[in-house]
Amino acid sequence: MNSKKGKFSLGFDFGTNSVRALLVDVRNGQEVATAIHNYETGKEGIILDPANPNLARQNPADYLKGITVAVKETLAKARRANKKFNPSEIIGIGVDTTGSTPMPVDANGTPLARHKEFKKNPNAHAWLWKDHTGYAEAAEITALATKEHPEYLAKCGGTYSSEWFFSKILHCLRTDPKVFNAAYTWVECADYLPAVLTDTAHPRFIKRSRCAAGHKAMFNDHWGGLPARDFLAKLNPKLGELRGRLYQKTYTADVTAGKLSKDWARKLGLASGIPVAVGAFDAHLGAVGSGVSPGKFVKIIGTSTCDICVWPNNQPLADIPGLCGIVDGSVLPGYYGLEAGQSAVGDIFNWFVNNIEPGGPKKGSHEALTKKAAKLKPARSGLLALDWNNGNRTILVDQRLTGLLLGQTLHTKPEEIYRALIEATAFGALTIIKRFEEYGIGTEEVINCGGIAEKNPLVMQIYADVIGKEMKIACSAQTCALGAAIAGAVVASKEAGGYDNFEEAQAAMCGIKKKMFKPNPENYKIYQELYSLYRKLHDAFGTKEWSGTLYNVMKDLLALRDKQLQEN
Amino acid sequence: MNSKKGKFSLGFDFGTNSVRALLVDVRNGQEVATAIHNYETGKEGIILDPANPNLARQNPADYLKGITVAVKETLAKARRANKKFNPSEIIGIGVDTTGSTPMPVDANGTPLARHKEFKKNPNAHAWLWKDHTGYAEAAEITALATKEHPEYLAKCGGTYSSEWFFSKILHCLRTDPKVFNAAYTWVECADYLPAVLTDTAHPRFIKRSRCAAGHKAMFNDHWGGLPARDFLAKLNPKLGELRGRLYQKTYTADVTAGKLSKDWARKLGLASGIPVAVGAFDAHLGAVGSGVSPGKFVKIIGTSTCDICVWPNNQPLADIPGLCGIVDGSVLPGYYGLEAGQSAVGDIFNWFVNNIEPGGPKKGSHEALTKKAAKLKPARSGLLALDWNNGNRTILVDQRLTGLLLGQTLHTKPEEIYRALIEATAFGALTIIKRFEEYGIGTEEVINCGGIAEKNPLVMQIYADVIGKEMKIACSAQTCALGAAIAGAVVASKEAGGYDNFEEAQAAMCGIKKKMFKPNPENYKIYQELYSLYRKLHDAFGTKEWSGTLYNVMKDLLALRDKQLQEN
Repeated sequence: MNSKKGKFSLGFDFGTNSVRALLVDVRNGQEVATAIHNYETGKEGIILDPANPNLARQNPADYLKGITVAVKETLAKARRANKKFNPSEIIGIGVDTTGSTPMPVDANGTPLARHKEFKKNPNAHAWLWKDHTGYAEAAEITALATKEHPEYLAKCGGTYSSEWFFSKILHCLRTDPKVFNAAYTWVECADYLPAVLTDTAHPRFIKRSRCAAGHKAMFNDHWGGLPARDFLAKLNPKLGELRGRLYQKTYTADVTAGKLSKDWARKLGLASGIPVAVGAFDAHLGAVGSGVSPGKFVKIIGTSTCDICVWPNNQPLADIPGLCGIVDGSVLPGYYGLEAGQSAVGDIFNWFVNNIEPGGPKKGSHEALTKKAAKLKPARSGLLALDWNNGNRTILVDQRLTGLLLGQTLHTKPEEIYRALIEATAFGALTIIKRFEEYGIGTEEVINCGGIAEKNPLVMQIYADVIGKEMKIACSAQTCALGAAIAGAVVASKEAGGYDNFEEAQAAMCGIKKKMFKPNPENYKIYQELYSLYRKLHDAFGTKEWSGTLYNVMKDLLALRDKQLQEN
Repeated sequence: MNSKKGKFSLGFDFGTNSVRALLVDVRNGQEVATAIHNYETGKEGIILDPANPNLARQNPADYLKGITVAVKETLAKARRANKKFNPSEIIGIGVDTTGSTPMPVDANGTPLARHKEFKKNPNAHAWLWKDHTGYAEAAEITALATKEHPEYLAKCGGTYSSEWFFSKILHCLRTDPKVFNAAYTWVECADYLPAVLTDTAHPRFIKRSRCAAGHKAMFNDHWGGLPARDFLAKLNPKLGELRGRLYQKTYTADVTAGKLSKDWARKLGLASGIPVAVGAFDAHLGAVGSGVSPGKFVKIIGTSTCDICVWPNNQPLADIPGLCGIVDGSVLPGYYGLEAGQSAVGDIFNWFVNNIEPGGPKKGSHEALTKKAAKLKPARSGLLALDWNNGNRTILVDQRLTGLLLGQTLHTKPEEIYRALIEATAFGALTIIKRFEEYGIGTEEVINCGGIAEKNPLVMQIYADVIGKEMKIACSAQTCALGAAIAGAVVASKEAGGYDNFEEAQAAMCGIKKKMFKPNPENYKIYQELYSLYRKLHDAFGTKEWSGTLYNVMKDLLALRDKQLQEN
């Protein structure tokens, strides 16, 4: 398909604390060189407010400084690895970012944070995805949409989040009208960065990300794009007015945002004119980098998880309740991108190691507990946990749920709790997969990526045993940046060595590791019994409709334990 | 009432790992001298079987060796404290023991453990209260009694325990018939020790403890003493035959078992002829030593709790469901002794410190956690626990229940869990008190004793705040041994300086510490709300009849937390 030698694509992955540049060979997706640069403003790149734990902002200048350093270092590494490497062989650039991370910009598309008068005002900076200052506004938007436009919420789990676009803008409007009034429009980080690099940041030219708009701003062509002006005006007349200065059109990541400007080519040490893809969110391009396609279910497992799959947009698809988002083209053009997730996975293990278990947060605690937990067998601790220490994103969509541990005796050991917590996240993962399957979305193959999938084989084995499917691991350790690089290879011209579409690029550039985790049939059988008990707790504490009995839960666990103990 | 100078009583407290002798002044209950001696056989005085974790036995010889050493040391201490002290001024002896701790004896009343052929056979030794080898037999006895004699179980919580008399004997009969057949009869430790000291151990003379018989052997004059011969014979014909060699009559602790024999007087360094009271269990005499009387509810709080109160036996009393035992005269003659308890209290705190929390079982962990937990305010952690890590003795009578912790977030700290565990035991304590109150048993005064009551003011303050009553602490740090000494003072002749009855002796010899723990009205209010949530979990997981919703439990906890956090 692509036989030319030495053609490369660059992926830019703008994360929460740092930006990564990844240079890959477009023939096979192999990593040639990579570098990261930590953002410099605030604490680990985040502007905080000691008086308000909900506040989390970023300085847009950090993104630009960061990518400049990271690209230069990447190119230097590529040259060190191969003296013949020439940056002119880079044929495309793709960009992924966090989100929803919107920022106010002026009529020229310049962030207000760069205006002298707003330099020190966090409200004029980028409102990072994990900023929750707009929680009251989120509730208000949810309430109004529930009443007047339930269709807006049907594609995003029934609840509009405080992490999202309009919650943040409305909160700014209410609490800092000076910034709101100074903003001509608001752009997502995923809109802004490709636009800056291609000198198309002016509001007239900027191409907005379908992924960001669809998942965070209730954008959907079915109802004419963004929520109706009347709807926004009811929240606040000025929000209604803003709609006209936002956007009517959005683009998938196979579309070229523009060509790398001369100015930025010089800054980055690249040739000018390289096509840059429209941006998308990290998890979505991470799924692309993991090889997502119909029937391939991608789990990005880190401190939390993002579960992504796709469904052809020419086939009927119900509004699947409990999912975070269903957006046409957010992952692959021509497909609905379906997003689900668990609010905490690695974070729960970290909590236990850093806050609770003997020895505290010393180095090697995870390893030591994992080693002991690996020796335990299913059901023998008599423990069962819920994975809700940070709420439940899917399928309950309820941030106000909390953790639960059941079955402690006077002999319960830390490694038993650690394993129960891993199992709980596996049961949570299974619950999400079951929801997809109920709606006919195939999950034949499960591909995992992210830190935990990479590093903890015990977690992967337990997931295989609980879910009853082989757990595969994406080849790349940087699937988000790889996904961005794939977008770069897709917007590159075919003559230069690029691909016609994502399918072709993925076929060449994505892969699965040889080591797969196969379910142990005996463990699977036991875990099915444990899952039915997990599900009882899940439904009892998580759903209004549940009416059952929990009387036997503790005893069923002990009976299961005793049966296993007797077996050897 | 008793003005003579320098008259003393001795209390012998035969515990799980050691025996204590306590010498008190009968005028005021003041401790004159005390000493303990650890049993020498097995691990910490307990014969274990590595192949069978249910087995726990004791060597009867340890009791006799132990009391000899402990009394001599006590007398030596008394002499050092007061050169004029003369053992001839000791006017009575009382004995408390653990139970049910039965042992097989021959036709002379000699324990089979002293026979050469059985010296190394654990089945010929004393079957310690915590021996659970007879769990299958307990279930069988429960099943048969439920069917044919529900009245037998109505006085002991509806379930016959594996810790009790007939479960152990039936298990011996089934698994070691040689020992069973060699036994003429079986005696409780509380029967045996006063009998040995007074040379009345021969089956014809031994006076059986009402407390032991009533609480552990279903003895009740209403149905002619022990369970019917037919009933026992249905379990096993030989058990039916044994009934004739057990006993028809039992005695309360105000009755003299006999006079101290010359032989034992010499061994102990005491005058012969001192009256020795009939034995009773440690918790029951502990309640006496704490000043129990109608309306005074005694909580003995250690690794587990025993809750004891009394009710006049000439007044009607229902079969209160869920209590461990209701026995006429088991605590005070003329009163029903009512026993309840929590299967683990201090043991839960120990589990958390020794097995789970950072730093592990290092010295001072309890103190450090207590210090931090004391700074927390009710409901602010958002945590709620059930106190069932060792099952639930009262009111659910279900050993197969396990622990539960709910409300963990990614920020939950060990001291918050520690406090939640303390609160859980307080909610368990309140549940017991409420059960008594439902049946009209007054609990106007709550008197606490035992290690935790003595040493952990935070626990006592939380109990006061949760229960909404003043928590009083018994003056004596050794209420069990003091209760035994009170029995000694009651069997002593009045001329010698003794008392006519327990009431008079208690009035003189018991007291309450000045420092009391008063409920904080604000905390009480919050804890009432938390208790209603605890009760939901308690009923949902612990009772068959429950049919409610748990959907709001996590959110109600968070709402309560947020309200408290807002208040300052």
